[in-house]
Amino acid sequence: MDALGKHLLLELKDCNAGLLNDIEYLRIVLSDVARQIGATVIQDSFYQFTPQGVSGVIIIAESHISIHTWPEHNFAAVDVFTCGDVIEPKNAVQPLAEKLKAKSTCYIELKRGTLTESQAMVGWK
Amino acid sequence: MDALGKHLLLELKDCNAGLLNDIEYLRIVLSDVARQIGATVIQDSFYQFTPQGVSGVIIIAESHISIHTWPEHNFAAVDVFTCGDVIEPKNAVQPLAEKLKAKSTCYIELKRGTLTESQAMVGWK
Repeated sequence: MDALGKHLLLELKDCNAGLLNDIEYLRIVLSDVARQIGATVIQDSFYQFTPQGVSGVIIIAESHISIHTWPEHNFAAVDVFTCGDVIEPKNAVQPLAEKLKAKSTCYIELKRGTLTESQAMVGWK
Repeated sequence: MDALGKHLLLELKDCNAGLLNDIEYLRIVLSDVARQIGATVIQDSFYQFTPQGVSGVIIIAESHISIHTWPEHNFAAVDVFTCGDVIEPKNAVQPLAEKLKAKSTCYIELKRGTLTESQAMVGWK
């Protein structure tokens, strides 16, 4: 790979609002999905907003997984940033969609730390 | 704005390797830059890798700012994800480049949580 990492930006739409506002559930979901895709969880930092919404980040040995939720829009934005060639961030899409009851998803994956100047762009999928 | 947030992906190249490996310096830099662009710092989570490299995330009221450094490549990948219309993530580019002594930068800004299906893509700048 001609890059240091891969960065998946995932949009989860029409999710279950209650799950999106449950900080402990989200912490478990992100940790479980991190391990499921082969990442090593190091530490996490989650925060519950008032009146609703959660922000959370898990630092993994391979970079990070983050989530920001808008229960009022049934929406969550997730990032899966992994360095190296072994982990495939796209493997997180389906389990995250299932655990948050998302009815639709779209994502884009970008290379990070390209060692050349060129950067192939792709659209949301 | 027809989106919930803006997400700046910033690549900092040819940085000072010593600064990229200084976890306490990076924690201060990210917090200072967060405040400089008008964000509200809530909590942070930083981790020092062995033999080198730092990962860190600051949760801000408006979403997050993250950094991953590769001192061996003089490279850092930074994300500035902000919700709402007020904060301009691009304002973080210049101060971050200066504080890490980056000789070149490139970035891309994506909309997150678009309430329509369309997503205009732009290339790295």
